[in-house]
Amino acid sequence: MLRKNRLFTPGPTPLLPAAQTAMASFTAHHRTADFRELFQRVLADMKEFIGTRNDVLVLACSGTGVMEASVSNLTSPGDKVLVLTAGKFGERWTELTKAFGCKVEVLSRPYGETFSLDDIQAKLTSDIRAVYVQATESSTGVRHDVERIAKIVHAQDDTLFIVDAITGLGTTHLEVDSWGVDFIIGGSQKALMMPPGLAYCAVSERAWKRMETTTSPRFYFDLRKERKSAAKGESAYTPATSLFAALGAALHFIREMGNGNLAQGGQELVRNAGLCAEMTRAGARALGLKLYASRPASALTAIASPDGVDAGVIVKEFRESFDAVVANGQGEMKGKLFRIAHIGYYDYLDTIGILAALEHVLAKVTAKPVEYGAAVRAAQEVYAGSLSDKRQLIGA
Amino acid sequence: MLRKNRLFTPGPTPLLPAAQTAMASFTAHHRTADFRELFQRVLADMKEFIGTRNDVLVLACSGTGVMEASVSNLTSPGDKVLVLTAGKFGERWTELTKAFGCKVEVLSRPYGETFSLDDIQAKLTSDIRAVYVQATESSTGVRHDVERIAKIVHAQDDTLFIVDAITGLGTTHLEVDSWGVDFIIGGSQKALMMPPGLAYCAVSERAWKRMETTTSPRFYFDLRKERKSAAKGESAYTPATSLFAALGAALHFIREMGNGNLAQGGQELVRNAGLCAEMTRAGARALGLKLYASRPASALTAIASPDGVDAGVIVKEFRESFDAVVANGQGEMKGKLFRIAHIGYYDYLDTIGILAALEHVLAKVTAKPVEYGAAVRAAQEVYAGSLSDKRQLIGA
Repeated sequence: MLRKNRLFTPGPTPLLPAAQTAMASFTAHHRTADFRELFQRVLADMKEFIGTRNDVLVLACSGTGVMEASVSNLTSPGDKVLVLTAGKFGERWTELTKAFGCKVEVLSRPYGETFSLDDIQAKLTSDIRAVYVQATESSTGVRHDVERIAKIVHAQDDTLFIVDAITGLGTTHLEVDSWGVDFIIGGSQKALMMPPGLAYCAVSERAWKRMETTTSPRFYFDLRKERKSAAKGESAYTPATSLFAALGAALHFIREMGNGNLAQGGQELVRNAGLCAEMTRAGARALGLKLYASRPASALTAIASPDGVDAGVIVKEFRESFDAVVANGQGEMKGKLFRIAHIGYYDYLDTIGILAALEHVLAKVTAKPVEYGAAVRAAQEVYAGSLSDKRQLIGA
Repeated sequence: MLRKNRLFTPGPTPLLPAAQTAMASFTAHHRTADFRELFQRVLADMKEFIGTRNDVLVLACSGTGVMEASVSNLTSPGDKVLVLTAGKFGERWTELTKAFGCKVEVLSRPYGETFSLDDIQAKLTSDIRAVYVQATESSTGVRHDVERIAKIVHAQDDTLFIVDAITGLGTTHLEVDSWGVDFIIGGSQKALMMPPGLAYCAVSERAWKRMETTTSPRFYFDLRKERKSAAKGESAYTPATSLFAALGAALHFIREMGNGNLAQGGQELVRNAGLCAEMTRAGARALGLKLYASRPASALTAIASPDGVDAGVIVKEFRESFDAVVANGQGEMKGKLFRIAHIGYYDYLDTIGILAALEHVLAKVTAKPVEYGAAVRAAQEVYAGSLSDKRQLIGA
């Protein structure tokens, strides 16, 4: 049977065709009125998409580059920071803040879990200058409680709150301004449905103020310089122009999802990921599989590999039989779980299809019999229940 | 008359159609065998293109990002370095090395000029840990003498030689290994005929050794981590996959230029830029225009604006009458010169066309009469003279 290559990985994710063609056909130079118009429209639209009045910057790098920017711009060597970590991306915060000479307090929880608010409270001494966390930890599929953590952090006047929402933005409800997220980070190859190569952030006034005094070296990621350039409709260094064109097309698509309202389109994306995730969780449970995350994100579903089965075998079987790419666990989690993403450009057919494929994969890699259609039916029931107007389903 | 938008700027440059379509259609995840195959082939091909046995790394950023990497990886705060500067990009070296806490010695020459070897010798004290220069200074159109400067620098055992060849690679003859360039930097939107978003470097063993002891903070641009990942066929962080696909297509095209030999294809590109540049210089001179560079590069031709004419008016007229984008001067040079690029994907028709357009532009912006065809004829004579087999022209 014909097999289409399909990504179910938590980034890169399936590409929006309009973004692909925009990218291929864009040729303008970056110091022209044509590009400035695109650049300014994209930055303004990104504010609506993120749902913030803070300045948004889009840089030519992957997400880790802007994670670095949040450390090199907001801390000085010797600053005490608190890292909340329960996965591979949380560990990246620890490495990064150490690389820039911070004194790093770490609140660590086992993979698959999240933080207790009391533990955060206990670690949050008054000399902590910044707190770093993920919105959704892509290595475990866990959603951290950004709203409540923000509240604790902002009980202290002089502590900045930095959130890696690379897989969180567009999959998770986040109120950047009202919750007080001082620095939020996203990447192009996630809910924005385009290839990797751009990463972005929204920066609060408190964070800009902090930059006036911090001393860590930075140049390519010097955000104050980027902000000055952006005010003139340009980036400080050569932008990845073709990817900007793709981003423009993606934002147009999201606006249309929201009937002309980009913020609403962003919320639709979040609801879409939520429904895909709920369908997938129901399907996995119907097959007797265990979910890995104690507090699952909508960005992806991490499923524990059945006893005695290496998750690598499952990943391989998805690839070989269906040309579908799901993700293995990372680091110590490798072999123990597999991950199916719901970030961005996924729909009903994708979700049903991957669950049906999962049934075949399980039948092949385990000795146990699988009831074909069990996961699919469970997912369909979630879908049917989600429709506000039930008659649409029963047969209008 | 129909006007096609055409870039004659020293980056971004005209796109190779095969790179555009490769970019649009590539969807593979970066942790798959498909992408690893592309990644490894591209890195191996890049060595042939650059003409080096040194490790080559390709990062998701613009050229300035890899310029930063050459500072943050190769120096420690307090290290004494020598910057050779005669233009806006030379000045970037000064800013960058200062941002990372180096003690910066600067040998500076006026815009449009290059360095005397005696001056370099005099500045090169034994405690200089690294020397930074451009191969071609894109702001002035000057070619610096990398070969001779390398010889002076390498008279000292412990001094590294770093060359920004962002507009130099693919336009200028450079022997990275035999001359001893320890760190050479390039960018995707130049001779590689693809959009901005990737930058690359070739790193000598001496430079890798230096990294064992340097202490400047780096994370996203940590080259030792990238080297380790590259040995396993991967990048440390998410690569800009679609741009990698474009790069693969561009390298394939350059190999075909060299009849299956990539190194030879690279030399063909250099010869092509050389011929475009020579034709353009002859055309400009035939119109009584003055060249800005004392030692002109083939990457671009910087032409002094005629007395009493702001170069911005010339740039605007090229745009309005022909939708051709030529570059104004940068910084203090703004208004005083305009720049026509020859980097990468330019041919005979492009070169003749822009010179003919220049005649119309001059006629419009100056009071003086212009002899139509004068620049074109001068360029044609250069072209005719360049053909090794003259009979091809006379009529075979």
